[in-house]
Amino acid sequence: MAGIFITLEGIDGAGKSTQAGRLAQWLEERTGRKTVRTFEPGGWPGGNSLREFILNGRGFSAMSELLMFLADRAEHVSRVILPSLRQGHNVICERWNESTLAYQSGGHELNPAHVKRIINACNFPEPDAKILIDISPETAIERVKSRKNNPDKFEAEGLAFMKTVAGFYRLIAESEPGKFIVVKSDGLNEDEVFAAITSRLEAMT
Amino acid sequence: MAGIFITLEGIDGAGKSTQAGRLAQWLEERTGRKTVRTFEPGGWPGGNSLREFILNGRGFSAMSELLMFLADRAEHVSRVILPSLRQGHNVICERWNESTLAYQSGGHELNPAHVKRIINACNFPEPDAKILIDISPETAIERVKSRKNNPDKFEAEGLAFMKTVAGFYRLIAESEPGKFIVVKSDGLNEDEVFAAITSRLEAMT
Repeated sequence: MAGIFITLEGIDGAGKSTQAGRLAQWLEERTGRKTVRTFEPGGWPGGNSLREFILNGRGFSAMSELLMFLADRAEHVSRVILPSLRQGHNVICERWNESTLAYQSGGHELNPAHVKRIINACNFPEPDAKILIDISPETAIERVKSRKNNPDKFEAEGLAFMKTVAGFYRLIAESEPGKFIVVKSDGLNEDEVFAAITSRLEAMT
Repeated sequence: MAGIFITLEGIDGAGKSTQAGRLAQWLEERTGRKTVRTFEPGGWPGGNSLREFILNGRGFSAMSELLMFLADRAEHVSRVILPSLRQGHNVICERWNESTLAYQSGGHELNPAHVKRIINACNFPEPDAKILIDISPETAIERVKSRKNNPDKFEAEGLAFMKTVAGFYRLIAESEPGKFIVVKSDGLNEDEVFAAITSRLEAMT
């Protein structure tokens, strides 16, 4: 039997990594299956070269950036996601198609229907559950500023950009109520966010 | 008025570059418009970095390679093809969507309908005319061997690979008889190939 595939979405500073780590442990204990924790872009052996190539920005157009993120996903799928699921492991992945849709169409003004058509044409594996940590961009950006001296390209684009992306994430999650677990995390601590996620996941796993 | 957009297709060694150079001059004289000659992958300022990234092979899967070629095309479109056409220049480009389809599905065993769906979703500009120089792989491979010490990845894949790709090119061209000019070039010299192309193009330009 294939493992469970869960993705975590949200703007930078939402707390995806923290929750991914706790979820991996929780899911492993709950299912008795090894749980692989991974991320995009670049979450495959050698993936750092492509991640750097994209994120360090060489002035690529929005469309070619979109296609490079999808190339990264294709490699991640064939090297990590599918082999892990087929071995019966669970997979928890930070960012997936919904990040691509939110950032590339919400943030970069490509036509959302066009972006969605390209993403859908790729036929990437569909997660069993998708989690959106919905944090206010104001809170998130303060967290991001405090944790890094060297923000990457997206993080450097500032508050207006993150607001647009956050709004897009919400629209995407609302369009798939049966698949998305949305946790509004402003005012919640780590434990409370985790409890909100797992209480919803318990019904599904 | 926008310029004329013509693409040249065919396996390595078909003689695309030679014909592209002659065609550019011919088209410039015939139309009185500047004619931009370009190529894929990497035919844009800075494009060599992505070309090298793809062609020097880091063991990418067929799907991610496909998406990186499309990223390269997106950049080429936004930096070279569309700006040139909009300025009223003609564009002659070696390789386009049909190369992607022939190599990535014909040569690399991705599902052709799937590759086509992804390419179509990108909405790249449609050429006014597409030229296929249909050479036998045996002749082509001898030419390629004689011209370079350091063949790139595709050229190194050998005769069986080139036969598959050549067969795929023919199928693609046959599916668009109103758009494709197919010149069977075995036994023809450069001048004869050129004459065969231009006699067909005269009706269109």
